[in-house]
Amino acid sequence: MGKQKQTAISPKREEDYPEWYQQVVKESDLAENSPVRGCMVIKPWGYTLWDNIKNELDKLFKATGVKNAYFPLFIPLSFFNKEAEHVEGFAKECAVVTHHRLEQTDDAGLVPAGPLTEPLVVRPTSETIIGESFSKWVDSYRDLPVLINQWANVVRWEMRTRIFLRTSEFLWQEGHTVHATEGEAIERTHMMLDVYTRFAEEYMAMPVIKGRKSPLERFPGAVDTLCIEAMMQDRKALQSGTSHFLGQNFAKSSNIKFQSADEKETYAWTTSWGVSTRLIGGLIMMHGDDDGLILPPRIASSHVVLMPIIRKPKDREKVMTYVNHLAEELRDVPFHSRKVEVEIDDRDIGGARGWDWIKKGIPVRVEIGLRDIDDNSVFVARRDKSHTEKASIKRDTFLIESSLD
Amino acid sequence: MGKQKQTAISPKREEDYPEWYQQVVKESDLAENSPVRGCMVIKPWGYTLWDNIKNELDKLFKATGVKNAYFPLFIPLSFFNKEAEHVEGFAKECAVVTHHRLEQTDDAGLVPAGPLTEPLVVRPTSETIIGESFSKWVDSYRDLPVLINQWANVVRWEMRTRIFLRTSEFLWQEGHTVHATEGEAIERTHMMLDVYTRFAEEYMAMPVIKGRKSPLERFPGAVDTLCIEAMMQDRKALQSGTSHFLGQNFAKSSNIKFQSADEKETYAWTTSWGVSTRLIGGLIMMHGDDDGLILPPRIASSHVVLMPIIRKPKDREKVMTYVNHLAEELRDVPFHSRKVEVEIDDRDIGGARGWDWIKKGIPVRVEIGLRDIDDNSVFVARRDKSHTEKASIKRDTFLIESSLD
Repeated sequence: MGKQKQTAISPKREEDYPEWYQQVVKESDLAENSPVRGCMVIKPWGYTLWDNIKNELDKLFKATGVKNAYFPLFIPLSFFNKEAEHVEGFAKECAVVTHHRLEQTDDAGLVPAGPLTEPLVVRPTSETIIGESFSKWVDSYRDLPVLINQWANVVRWEMRTRIFLRTSEFLWQEGHTVHATEGEAIERTHMMLDVYTRFAEEYMAMPVIKGRKSPLERFPGAVDTLCIEAMMQDRKALQSGTSHFLGQNFAKSSNIKFQSADEKETYAWTTSWGVSTRLIGGLIMMHGDDDGLILPPRIASSHVVLMPIIRKPKDREKVMTYVNHLAEELRDVPFHSRKVEVEIDDRDIGGARGWDWIKKGIPVRVEIGLRDIDDNSVFVARRDKSHTEKASIKRDTFLIESSLD
Repeated sequence: MGKQKQTAISPKREEDYPEWYQQVVKESDLAENSPVRGCMVIKPWGYTLWDNIKNELDKLFKATGVKNAYFPLFIPLSFFNKEAEHVEGFAKECAVVTHHRLEQTDDAGLVPAGPLTEPLVVRPTSETIIGESFSKWVDSYRDLPVLINQWANVVRWEMRTRIFLRTSEFLWQEGHTVHATEGEAIERTHMMLDVYTRFAEEYMAMPVIKGRKSPLERFPGAVDTLCIEAMMQDRKALQSGTSHFLGQNFAKSSNIKFQSADEKETYAWTTSWGVSTRLIGGLIMMHGDDDGLILPPRIASSHVVLMPIIRKPKDREKVMTYVNHLAEELRDVPFHSRKVEVEIDDRDIGGARGWDWIKKGIPVRVEIGLRDIDDNSVFVARRDKSHTEKASIKRDTFLIESSLD
């Protein structure tokens, strides 16, 4: 049993926290660095987690009247340049498209060709390009509020990157709203911070502290930046979501005006708010232990792994039939907005199999052998308990408990 | 009643089909051109449609064992250059990032700065960058098949663009799979074409013909390109989805090798397959009529609009209570994988209200006034019937019929 005493992740948290983080990401198979500077490859186990975060957040947004839309990846330089603080804040980290084709040359090989008249900035955030649309959509007070969200990739060129926490390309959502009054816009800024707080706490089991950024840390161009910060195990705070009251700054630079009920033309008030794949970084640092990742069940990439124990080839059919049948039943058990999701792992690799799933952070591991079948029970371990803590549970009890919140 | 005789879309299809198309897109509020060359803004009514397409297709993919992942937006020039036919096929339409920051200058204003050592291509498709990951993921025959899909934006610089049908940036999915044998890869190529066919026919009500592209129209680098083509109302075929058998071409250029059961090292066989926001263009041209867009119910952005008829201010409360209550009940009625989705439009803008929803293609329009309430009935029009065809239906019958497939 030497294997079970072994720490799954090396180093331990207390030995080297940053390196522990990298190893958890690697061993859990969430993501990996790509050959493209600062960009990551999000692997299926990590992407499913993001998809679950996305689906749940999307429902919370929609419940407040927000609708999704999609805006261009590229921002013409002149647009980007409209809001002085904004361009200054992002100028140092912009990927810039300057050519629109490639050409084979005799001496230099393949080179960029077809220079653009106006360079295009790959969006680091979309206030300026969305503002241009809003200036066309908003005409009268009857058009307000405009409540839009976009799920997208953005690029902020980073010199030092850390997977999920700080990458040159990342996935996020950016909400953008337009209001008739200052009060309404401020209210929306707080409302979305509350949505983020609720999501972090109820879905990710991640307590956060709401706060206000200092002028130096404010979003470039904002009047006020609110944020949620979560405490990581290294006692450092991680900014996990921000909600900006933009005043009339972007309305003025993008010319978002409307005619009020008493026929006066006035600039609108806007907000923007976002969370990103950085949330996954926070989740790792909040819940992970020296054995690896721990996934909160409501957004877990999957809930249960069934691991058949097949000692002799002749037992295979009986065990697999039982396992497949149990999986089918489990997949029909509701769990919050989803149903229970089940993996079956019948690889014959010894103790490495259990450890794989511990490191991946799946909430529940189940071993099923002939003895369990005869006893009509299953052998269950929970990821939030010690990896040595396993218990035999009657099959029916297990099915019922799986449906509990 | 002159209004009702009016054609909602001008020109009619037979007068000018391409212009009719642009007007349907505009009047239905699906999308609009952006100030960025060739890029579109997908508005909420259009984006919700895409989201529904995405959700349904995603389930069909997953049922075949495919998992989602995410790969970098940028491809280093050297990677892109690995497959000769591939780079030749896409070289003329690549957006190229050459700088990683912006600088304010005294004479020229804001300019690109920080030239990259190696230019980055904004992905027009991801075979080469995903191939790089696969070469690391695949080692042994036990790692195969690899079945991956990515939902993403891609960029192909276009000189002449038409919204949804041909845009410089578009949204799509690209599936990429790796197999141990040629036969398995060919089988997967056909399997995914079948998935597209089923989706087009059963979800979009769009009959398609399966076919094989000629060598000249083949995907650059593919051995074989299969496609589905749909017949539009102008008697032209629209390519609506493609599935490529890539042979060992990309496995060789990306070095995707594996050790077989008998310990021989061999190149793998790969496929790729994709559909894009172009499907929405096909949907418009397949179903639209001279009154505007017609949405197939299974993927419609919404199903039913309730339009209260309030003749006197004192009637408002009674009518709205009835309407809100009906909406609540409808939203609980299952319709395929969703529940019935309901809009309430209480704008006081006369006949323009009904026409707005006709043009937006919502499947069912319901008018509710005092008389209907007293009669416990609703006044219903279906978008697939003529806009003058409306009928009074008992409320209960309407609720039951809404749940029928």
